[in-house]
Amino acid sequence: MRCDVTELPVLASERVGEDVGVWCERMRARVRDTVTDFVGARCREHLDVPETAVLAQVITDFAARGKYLRSAFQLAGWLTVEPERRAAVRAAASAELLHCFALMQDDVMDQSAVRRGMPAAHVRFAQWHRYQGFSGESERFGESAAVLAADLCLVWAEQLLRESGVSASALARVMPRYAAMRSELAVGQFRDLVNDSVRRPALGDVLAVARAKSGNYTVRRPLELGATLAGASPGVLAALARYGAAVGEAFQLRDDLLGVFGDPEVTGKPVGDDIRARKATSVLVSARDHAEGAAAAELDRLDAMAELPAAAVARYVEILEDMGTRERVEKLIEHRVHEGLAAVADAAISPRAHAVLTHLAHSCTDRTN
Amino acid sequence: MRCDVTELPVLASERVGEDVGVWCERMRARVRDTVTDFVGARCREHLDVPETAVLAQVITDFAARGKYLRSAFQLAGWLTVEPERRAAVRAAASAELLHCFALMQDDVMDQSAVRRGMPAAHVRFAQWHRYQGFSGESERFGESAAVLAADLCLVWAEQLLRESGVSASALARVMPRYAAMRSELAVGQFRDLVNDSVRRPALGDVLAVARAKSGNYTVRRPLELGATLAGASPGVLAALARYGAAVGEAFQLRDDLLGVFGDPEVTGKPVGDDIRARKATSVLVSARDHAEGAAAAELDRLDAMAELPAAAVARYVEILEDMGTRERVEKLIEHRVHEGLAAVADAAISPRAHAVLTHLAHSCTDRTN
Repeated sequence: MRCDVTELPVLASERVGEDVGVWCERMRARVRDTVTDFVGARCREHLDVPETAVLAQVITDFAARGKYLRSAFQLAGWLTVEPERRAAVRAAASAELLHCFALMQDDVMDQSAVRRGMPAAHVRFAQWHRYQGFSGESERFGESAAVLAADLCLVWAEQLLRESGVSASALARVMPRYAAMRSELAVGQFRDLVNDSVRRPALGDVLAVARAKSGNYTVRRPLELGATLAGASPGVLAALARYGAAVGEAFQLRDDLLGVFGDPEVTGKPVGDDIRARKATSVLVSARDHAEGAAAAELDRLDAMAELPAAAVARYVEILEDMGTRERVEKLIEHRVHEGLAAVADAAISPRAHAVLTHLAHSCTDRTN
Repeated sequence: MRCDVTELPVLASERVGEDVGVWCERMRARVRDTVTDFVGARCREHLDVPETAVLAQVITDFAARGKYLRSAFQLAGWLTVEPERRAAVRAAASAELLHCFALMQDDVMDQSAVRRGMPAAHVRFAQWHRYQGFSGESERFGESAAVLAADLCLVWAEQLLRESGVSASALARVMPRYAAMRSELAVGQFRDLVNDSVRRPALGDVLAVARAKSGNYTVRRPLELGATLAGASPGVLAALARYGAAVGEAFQLRDDLLGVFGDPEVTGKPVGDDIRARKATSVLVSARDHAEGAAAAELDRLDAMAELPAAAVARYVEILEDMGTRERVEKLIEHRVHEGLAAVADAAISPRAHAVLTHLAHSCTDRTN
């Protein structure tokens, strides 16, 4: 892809009056097709010998699933000042490959067995190792292979962005932000590891990490990348930053609520996953901070157990439910969504972008998976 | 860094008649300073809270050491058609950050404890975890942290290349090759893992991986990147590719020889590291292929042992020495170096590039560490 490639033409004129939910679904499908095609091409280029077929299969399956939320926010950022274009869709699709990288690596570090309703990447590689009758530890092989699959996704994400067809000047504007976001992501994950290693981390630290790692990376940074590609003004970028910080935090709070109270059939993750893994999530840490009397004593007892059997996890959830944790966090989410929408209410952005931002603020914070 | 940044001026006129070894040392020092400055700036930007100080320290220490071979080859590639420039030195320095990424990750996967004469990155992070009195497994924390430190090096490498000051058109030319090299690197490491898992891999597979993973990545790709940045002709690129393939293979053979016969005081790695880890290196696999009679029987017996004590490792080395493995591989190395030099003998490249390529072909294949 040469530096002087110009914008590709608008793909289809915006369908007049198209419902915003329908639009989001249409974009999601286009992003998924883009990711699938690009991954397919990279696999044919680099994974063309029999031993690497498993790498191609795992990456392809992984990339084809997901909520495709980050690409939606990136496209929303673009739409604030530019119309829908094929190049913008391709650039947004690259956010999904970056997300594949982050998830595959996080799952190794957190030893999460299930992701997107399938065995996690490292679990699939370990299964393959066992099935081949290889020597050495299958689990260890699986983790190493998943880290390498993640590396490929990281490299391919950047390649897809660069080869998306956006103009050279748009790319030059966005690359410093892109590098900063990827650094922030790795640092956030490191701080997360540290918080998980501290027996009782402070709520402030946990929220700071949640903001940097998940909130920023899911909502604010993709929005800013999309808007920067489109050449948005500093005023628009500032409004999007406020929206992104608030909605990103609400997204993370919803995620943490689902990690405790979610339906495993819908989330695709085992029940009480965060409790069992002693993850320092906002919900769990703030619940410990709010617990008093008998509830605090019982949580202390459960926290002191070496492993938590199913009944103990269920009891843990029940205590939190009785303490009103769920309602308290629901209110926080509602407040943050309101704050986010207020931040863009008067911004100089297109009506379509406004509608999409409103739709996404609700759908990403009021979800069951 | 904007896309339209133009070449920075030549830093210092080439010193007339400067000895090529002195030149290489001068370049090495400038590359090291560039890496140190750039890493320092990124650490101040992203690792500015107390919990992340350890991440900054480990990356800084790691990046300041090393043979700086890849940057030397990248600069040699540039010199084939362009004079020495600050931007080219900065672009070459980025190859060293990419190498930090590869080494930190490989050491986790291979469970190597020592690197560059220091504890490996994951070992240092594990030590820090223990020292802090954190909960959870220190080894696991160390490995996760090292993978994240590697991620930062990968992202920063690309950032340094992009912000090196080379022209937008040079960057646009080189980026597809850069993406391909990074994909090749991850795929090579995956195939290496697979070979290590197969009880008796075929020599052909082992050499194919060594070529893709180590040889290409150390010599050929950096050369091609440098030459592409400088705008070399297809003819020059073809000659460099032949040189790179041959010298890269010789480099890898030397590495594999040192892994068996190297002096641990000089290599910075424990004696018999590859034998103990049952690594499928070219030297070990070809020795097994050549072994006959009593030697083959004794190697079979040693290979069947669950763990190799120091005396068994020493005996292993002795058997290989008696079989003439060392001489055979030395001859192969000599042959490849000759082949490489012949490939560039008549190429249309600068006399300085020719002298550097000759110097590097010998120094990187006739080394003790």
